[in-house]
Amino acid sequence: MNRLYHVPLSPFCRKVRLTLAEKKIEVELVEERYWEQSPDFLRRNPAGKVPVLRLDGRLLSESQAICEYLDETHPHPQLLPRDPEMRYEVRRLCIWFDDKFHNEVTSKLLYERVNKKLTKEGYPDSKNVKSGAARIKYHLDYLAWLLDQRRWLAGDVMTLADFAAAAHLSSLDYISDVDWNRHAVVKTWYATIKSRPSFRTLLSDQVPGFPPPQHYADLDF
Amino acid sequence: MNRLYHVPLSPFCRKVRLTLAEKKIEVELVEERYWEQSPDFLRRNPAGKVPVLRLDGRLLSESQAICEYLDETHPHPQLLPRDPEMRYEVRRLCIWFDDKFHNEVTSKLLYERVNKKLTKEGYPDSKNVKSGAARIKYHLDYLAWLLDQRRWLAGDVMTLADFAAAAHLSSLDYISDVDWNRHAVVKTWYATIKSRPSFRTLLSDQVPGFPPPQHYADLDF
Repeated sequence: MNRLYHVPLSPFCRKVRLTLAEKKIEVELVEERYWEQSPDFLRRNPAGKVPVLRLDGRLLSESQAICEYLDETHPHPQLLPRDPEMRYEVRRLCIWFDDKFHNEVTSKLLYERVNKKLTKEGYPDSKNVKSGAARIKYHLDYLAWLLDQRRWLAGDVMTLADFAAAAHLSSLDYISDVDWNRHAVVKTWYATIKSRPSFRTLLSDQVPGFPPPQHYADLDF
Repeated sequence: MNRLYHVPLSPFCRKVRLTLAEKKIEVELVEERYWEQSPDFLRRNPAGKVPVLRLDGRLLSESQAICEYLDETHPHPQLLPRDPEMRYEVRRLCIWFDDKFHNEVTSKLLYERVNKKLTKEGYPDSKNVKSGAARIKYHLDYLAWLLDQRRWLAGDVMTLADFAAAAHLSSLDYISDVDWNRHAVVKTWYATIKSRPSFRTLLSDQVPGFPPPQHYADLDF
C-alpha cells in the first residue's frame, strides 16, 4: 500500500496530497509526529521532514521533488506544461510560495499559532504574528496582480503553482488568517480550486484543539 | 548582452554560474547589492533576491528554476538525466543543499562571518558559528556516505546536484570552513569538480576585506 507520512496543516504535505489526488493515486495517510525525530522516521527521511511518500516500495521526500516525479511518471493531468517558459514560471512560483511566502507568512502565522502548541515549544510570538499578518496582504496583492493578467497563476492552464499557492492559503484559512475580501479575483480563483474533488481530503482535516471555522470547508465561503 | 546579477559568494548564484559555464552561455557578471533593495533591482525581481539572469531579453529568478530552464533550453551537457528516478534524486539533493545545508551551515558560517560585515548588520553571533561548524561535519559524512555508493552525488553521472553541493562548499572554502581531510572520497570528488573549466570563474572571485586562503584556488589543495 502506498503511504504518505504527513501532518494535516503542512502546506508541503498538502501540495503533495493535491497532486496525488489530481492524479488519482491512492495513498494511506499516516500522521507523523516529525518533531519527535523518531529513529524510524529518520530512517525514512534523514532530512527529518514531512512529507515522506512510500510509493511502489520507494521512499520519496521533499515536496517539490516528489510532485515533479509524480508529474513525470503519472502525466495525467499534466501539472507542469511542456513549454520550457511555462515550466520555468511554474517552478518560480512554487519556490515563491514554498520559500518566500513560507518564510514571511506561513511560518509567522501557522507555525506560531498552531505548530508551537502541538510541538509544545511555547506561546506564539506576537511580533511574528503581527509581521505575518502584515506580509500576507502584500502576497495577496501579488496574487491579484498575476490573476489580473492570467487565468491561472502561471498562465492559461492550471499547474502545480496553483496547488503550491492553494496549499499555503488553505492551511492559513483553517485558522482564519486569509482575508478573502481583499481581492475578488483571488477569491474566485481559490473558490475554483477549492471545489475540485482533489481538495476534499484537505477540507475534512481536523486538528485536535483547533476546530476549523465554519467557512473553511464551505465551497460558497 | 546576457547578464547575471549576483554576489560572488552566494551559493545560489554560483550554482547558476556553474550551469551557465558548463553550457557555454556567455554572460556579463554584475554585482548586485541586493540588501539595499533598490527600486531598479526590485523591478527585476520582486522577491528581492539574487541571482537574477537577463537572458535573450527575459528576466529569470530563483536559482533552481533558472538551472532547470537552462537545462531544458540548452541540453548539452545534460545536468538532469532523462530517467525520472534520477531526476527525482537530483532534485532531492539540490533541495537538500539549498534548504537544509543552507539553513544549518551556509547561513550559520558564511552569512555570519561575511554577509553581516558586507551588509553592515553587525558582528558574527558565535552561537551560530559554533552550530554551523558542528553541523557541517554531519553533512560531510552524508556526502561521504553517498560517494561510497556512487561515482557522483546522484548516481553514475555528474548532475546539477554536484554543482549545488559544490556551490555551497566552494563558498565556505573561501573562508576556510571546510575540513577536506575528514573524508578522502569527498576531497577527491571536490577536486574533480574544482578542476573543470566551468569552475575557473569561481576561483578568481575576490571579496574586498576577505582575501581567500591560498588553497582556495589551488587545484592540488
